[in-house]
Amino acid sequence: MVDLVQRRIDSFLDERATELRDVSSDLDVLEAAARGLLAGGKRFRALFCYWGWQSVSALGDGNDPAADSPGTGPVVAVAAALELFHAAALVHDDIMDNSDLRRGEPSLHRRFETLHTDRGWSGSAEGYGRASALLLGDLLLGWSDGLFEEGLAEAAAGGASARTGAEAGAGAAAARAEFARMRTEVMLGQYLDMLEEHSWRGRPDAELLTRAHRVVVYKAAKYSVEAPLAIGASLAGASLPQLTALREYGLPLGVAFQLRDDLLGVYGDPAATGKPAGDDLREGKRTVLIALARQALPGSAARLLDELLGDPDLDAGQIAMLQASIRDSGAVDQIERIIAHNAEVAVAAIADAPLARTARDELAALAATVTRRDR
Amino acid sequence: MVDLVQRRIDSFLDERATELRDVSSDLDVLEAAARGLLAGGKRFRALFCYWGWQSVSALGDGNDPAADSPGTGPVVAVAAALELFHAAALVHDDIMDNSDLRRGEPSLHRRFETLHTDRGWSGSAEGYGRASALLLGDLLLGWSDGLFEEGLAEAAAGGASARTGAEAGAGAAAARAEFARMRTEVMLGQYLDMLEEHSWRGRPDAELLTRAHRVVVYKAAKYSVEAPLAIGASLAGASLPQLTALREYGLPLGVAFQLRDDLLGVYGDPAATGKPAGDDLREGKRTVLIALARQALPGSAARLLDELLGDPDLDAGQIAMLQASIRDSGAVDQIERIIAHNAEVAVAAIADAPLARTARDELAALAATVTRRDR
Repeated sequence: MVDLVQRRIDSFLDERATELRDVSSDLDVLEAAARGLLAGGKRFRALFCYWGWQSVSALGDGNDPAADSPGTGPVVAVAAALELFHAAALVHDDIMDNSDLRRGEPSLHRRFETLHTDRGWSGSAEGYGRASALLLGDLLLGWSDGLFEEGLAEAAAGGASARTGAEAGAGAAAARAEFARMRTEVMLGQYLDMLEEHSWRGRPDAELLTRAHRVVVYKAAKYSVEAPLAIGASLAGASLPQLTALREYGLPLGVAFQLRDDLLGVYGDPAATGKPAGDDLREGKRTVLIALARQALPGSAARLLDELLGDPDLDAGQIAMLQASIRDSGAVDQIERIIAHNAEVAVAAIADAPLARTARDELAALAATVTRRDR
Repeated sequence: MVDLVQRRIDSFLDERATELRDVSSDLDVLEAAARGLLAGGKRFRALFCYWGWQSVSALGDGNDPAADSPGTGPVVAVAAALELFHAAALVHDDIMDNSDLRRGEPSLHRRFETLHTDRGWSGSAEGYGRASALLLGDLLLGWSDGLFEEGLAEAAAGGASARTGAEAGAGAAAARAEFARMRTEVMLGQYLDMLEEHSWRGRPDAELLTRAHRVVVYKAAKYSVEAPLAIGASLAGASLPQLTALREYGLPLGVAFQLRDDLLGVYGDPAATGKPAGDDLREGKRTVLIALARQALPGSAARLLDELLGDPDLDAGQIAMLQASIRDSGAVDQIERIIAHNAEVAVAAIADAPLARTARDELAALAATVTRRDR
């Protein structure tokens, strides 16, 4: 399935590359950058989209079609579109955070910056790097939408055999609405996340956890798990009970997914995450982990945490001290318990749901994968 | 027509505002910013979209429907979507150019920066301003697509009476393809424009004009005129001869449109343009105007132009000197002749085309408006 998505991304980029070459060979660098961005990644969003679709579409048939059967074309295109969107979001995210690294390699705006220097161009290399990355992100946002519509069009063309045109049309409209909602919600989540870093000092301590949780829900849980599932399921013409079950699986699992990310942001092994150790501490992210630690720590330790968090110049010793302080507060154990609990709740929500058995099994396995990873 | 588009934008933003408030009252600033961005503007893209549609749809009926007849709903939505897209592009453009002003008011990232300072938030006000504007641009890109699809869905729903569902579907698919192409091409044009500022020194002088012209075509002529016309006409189910005539009008007019912009960027009255005098000179834009001036100027004057162009600290005297030097080269007269010639070619292309008469008259009037404006 991941291979099918990759092939679809590659062939879509082949078509775009032709368009780019028709305009100017100066655009080769944009093509190369897009390919680099889309050559890897965990593909969780594509997987959830695919299994959301499969959980509905494989149910009526009595047998689950193989992943490479011709019927999977539309959902593969839609899943690939989610990966294009995600690549765009990461590029823009790295610009906003001024991140130097992504997956252990220089971030895109830094790569363009290096290109500027290597070619000996004039003006600001940093300005060129940032502008190029911003534009490539915009380009990918548009392309993601184009690929998404290709998927819907293929579903409509193929839908005549399996279902009526009206049913296929309703599925396409529902999938499109879910996609639109996802795009809005993730941007709102990103904004709230960034706002929190800048404004938490002036806000009630009592609401810290609530606000951190809201960021998790919008920026990650809905975006990375619930929405992809709902998009895939809608494309397959999911009923309300089917969608509800998938959401009841997706939202708690998505929260657990992000909480694992928060732990990795503080305790992750740089060799696995591709990010410097304690990256989130230097960046000052006000995560649920931090909110829990602050509640549990004595006043002096909490004040020290507040003081150091977000200082880009934290040294290794300070990072280690913060890591120990947060762990000693009990917040790490608490987060691990929430993750385990949410994963259980998620799997239980689909245990007896009207969804295809193979898909339920696969979603249960995915719940383990996304909550127990090291990168 | 412009009022209908504004009303559609306002009601679309009302719906989005409800979604934002459901997430958090912290998002009110995003809503306010979106409304501010979309409260004004010249609306040329919406107008070309509308008259492209009208030129086809009014032809078969024997009489031109009034602009506020119920049948205009879909094209008004699509035209409004183009304005949302344009607002997003301007916001991202101002981030890339580090522009302080837009239409005589602080640019969006500067407004957010001020908000950060006013509220006494912590961290970098500039970082917050840029990130907020970037995210709002992304949000608007997604919304523009949502509103575009609303228009297509309304066309499909209403198309059953006037045309067959298959015809309406083909029109929607064609309009969507034009929209996708427009989104790609404008980003490519933006990239080439920015690249030129950074890399022209190392490139052959002989290609300067060709490269400047390519930027005009992709960044402006197609984006601002040809594509909106083609989108509107496609939505109405345009035939190939109709589309061809509109493109033959749109492309030269679009070039003229941008050449007028280039003149305004150097000679525009700040009170009318809302930009500082000689803004493009400080920014170092390598426009067709500059390419023509460089060709005509004697070596020493051309070298001085190269040296000063793009210096953000040019003073009023230097600006005045550059303005005079470019004018003395004959480039301004030459540009004015190209503009007049292109406007003529454009109007001639639709004079006998199979397009509705009222629309042809309106497009001829629009050709005058967009090439003879002072802002």
